[in-house]
Amino acid sequence: MIIKCLKSNLLNGVQTVYKAVPSKTTMSILECILIKADERGIVLTANDMEIGIETRIEGTVVEEGIIALEAKILFEIVRKLPDSEIIIDTDESLKASITCEKSNFTIVGRSGDDFSYLPEIDKKDPIIISHFTLKEIVRQTIFSISDNDNNIIMTGEYMEINENELKLVSLDGHRISIRKVTLKNNYEPKKVIIPGKTLNEVSKILSGDAEKDLYIYFTDKHVLFEFDKTIVVSRLIEGEYFKIDQMLSSDYETKIEINKKELLDCIDRATLLVKEGDKRPIIISVNDDNMQLKINSAVGSMNEEININKEGKTLMIGFNPKFLIDALRVIDDETINIYMVNPKAPCFIKNDDESYIYLILPVNFNTVS
Amino acid sequence: MIIKCLKSNLLNGVQTVYKAVPSKTTMSILECILIKADERGIVLTANDMEIGIETRIEGTVVEEGIIALEAKILFEIVRKLPDSEIIIDTDESLKASITCEKSNFTIVGRSGDDFSYLPEIDKKDPIIISHFTLKEIVRQTIFSISDNDNNIIMTGEYMEINENELKLVSLDGHRISIRKVTLKNNYEPKKVIIPGKTLNEVSKILSGDAEKDLYIYFTDKHVLFEFDKTIVVSRLIEGEYFKIDQMLSSDYETKIEINKKELLDCIDRATLLVKEGDKRPIIISVNDDNMQLKINSAVGSMNEEININKEGKTLMIGFNPKFLIDALRVIDDETINIYMVNPKAPCFIKNDDESYIYLILPVNFNTVS
Repeated sequence: MIIKCLKSNLLNGVQTVYKAVPSKTTMSILECILIKADERGIVLTANDMEIGIETRIEGTVVEEGIIALEAKILFEIVRKLPDSEIIIDTDESLKASITCEKSNFTIVGRSGDDFSYLPEIDKKDPIIISHFTLKEIVRQTIFSISDNDNNIIMTGEYMEINENELKLVSLDGHRISIRKVTLKNNYEPKKVIIPGKTLNEVSKILSGDAEKDLYIYFTDKHVLFEFDKTIVVSRLIEGEYFKIDQMLSSDYETKIEINKKELLDCIDRATLLVKEGDKRPIIISVNDDNMQLKINSAVGSMNEEININKEGKTLMIGFNPKFLIDALRVIDDETINIYMVNPKAPCFIKNDDESYIYLILPVNFNTVS
Repeated sequence: MIIKCLKSNLLNGVQTVYKAVPSKTTMSILECILIKADERGIVLTANDMEIGIETRIEGTVVEEGIIALEAKILFEIVRKLPDSEIIIDTDESLKASITCEKSNFTIVGRSGDDFSYLPEIDKKDPIIISHFTLKEIVRQTIFSISDNDNNIIMTGEYMEINENELKLVSLDGHRISIRKVTLKNNYEPKKVIIPGKTLNEVSKILSGDAEKDLYIYFTDKHVLFEFDKTIVVSRLIEGEYFKIDQMLSSDYETKIEINKKELLDCIDRATLLVKEGDKRPIIISVNDDNMQLKINSAVGSMNEEININKEGKTLMIGFNPKFLIDALRVIDDETINIYMVNPKAPCFIKNDDESYIYLILPVNFNTVS
């Protein structure tokens, strides 16, 4: 195989597929990036058996061929070469010579035959969504998936499509995050659970361009994201998702309107008294026109007041401050509404059209404070 | 004690003295910052027994007093408070209340009596040098001190002052780094060894301003740096430094002139084939009008050519690539001269007026490559 391409193109391609190279594996071939050069051009592939990424790069195929090169060393070499044309030339003994200007590296590659290729996906009926929108709704929900493998379903996000509405949901047993967006087209109903890792990696590769569309294809077992010159293939999580609708309720006893930044900054300050792993709650007293936030720990105590608009009853309620911070960080609204029932019932942070809903369970503060 | 000051002033002060707070210590009082408020104003102090920093901050003393507060928590609180006036109010039980707008923290402090105060230094005959110059010469030599405590003298830098010349030297057994600068005034001869850690911390606090002067005072056992509203006191390293002049020589068999960036980039690329801890040398062949650089490792090999101007003999010599990189990174010249004798003798990178000299020992490459 002999290929020629600009350093910038090769580097972009390697960085894109690198996200599917496992950091730890017992199958050393998975640590490689496959370079395939044929009449269709130059394609790079990486695959960790759960998620596979393939991207096409611009360049010239001088001689067709295929080789698997260790991802880390390939990335390091390409990154440090001058900003010029790179030639990769491999021989039958699988030695790969990488040349750029007066610099030449020789590394030993592996046969493409050993590589695990991506599953073939029948591409039909794609869901179309902008890069920006997908990246945003993933960011706004991904923090509340569970990283505990005991319940595999909680490690994924639930995606539901109904006509022109797409809903993305995550939950971890203490909280639920929901974002809804309107799509340009109408679709048949669809319910799938996509691994959180897949959504994370896809959103890292996405530019965030609001003008560019991304295509999502589904089969029974797989999801395929197609954008720019890249495809990402992942298995879906099998099983049935939790019945979210039963957990949501629009009843409330107390509704407060509060400046989001003031609340976030205050809780952020409070957490500095709490060491990692210490489950110290922040205790909120909702009064008629202000809210008092208190935290006590071995280090010291904090006390702060924030002005609010209140409807309904006064209330005292405790929360894990991290859960409030996670939700507040991904809400763009300047002023938010918080709905509460009593110190034992979930609280909701949501807007009027419910394009976002964050449910957070309170904690019992009598026993810990 | 009651003091009032702007968040920005308090934060700057805390950050400045924080550098003398030890990260690990069995004496918990050393983890504190001492705040002293009297008729002379507000002074913050930290002291890890090797290096002590004291800085004066702007603010109002409402009630004189003294308290030691845990540095980490004080820093975190001040950093996260709103950009407004902060009031610190302590009572007899050593409780400190830190208030800013509607936010109030309470932490428990310690008595100032437990604190280890800085040694009293008799300030006379200071050496005057600009912030910029001191910061630069430290950066340009500090990398070749030894971090091995077996030879305490190698963990410091040798400073020699003679009339209006200041020389700073570091060495670690494989290399020597020397920088010389001209001072504005003339001084009595002086030879001291300053701990590398002290120079590092001082240079981190320094703004790098070429217009501002810094005063250095010496006693038999201590050095004191005074600048802005801050003083840094450190013990000196006792003992006699190595006889540097005997190790320097101006004889050479080969002199090359080379573009510094090309050489640095090339060696930087070469090192990516070498894993941490692997002492693989880079082998340099000096030919008539170019230099060839080669490295071989288990990962692969690299080969590169750079154009040079050469005087004297051709030569093949091996180096630890890290030592070349360290020296090349701190040389600002676009074109540099390298002087060599033979594959076993030290090589010198230096300029004509010897304001910098980097001596690097070669490695024997026959046995390792």
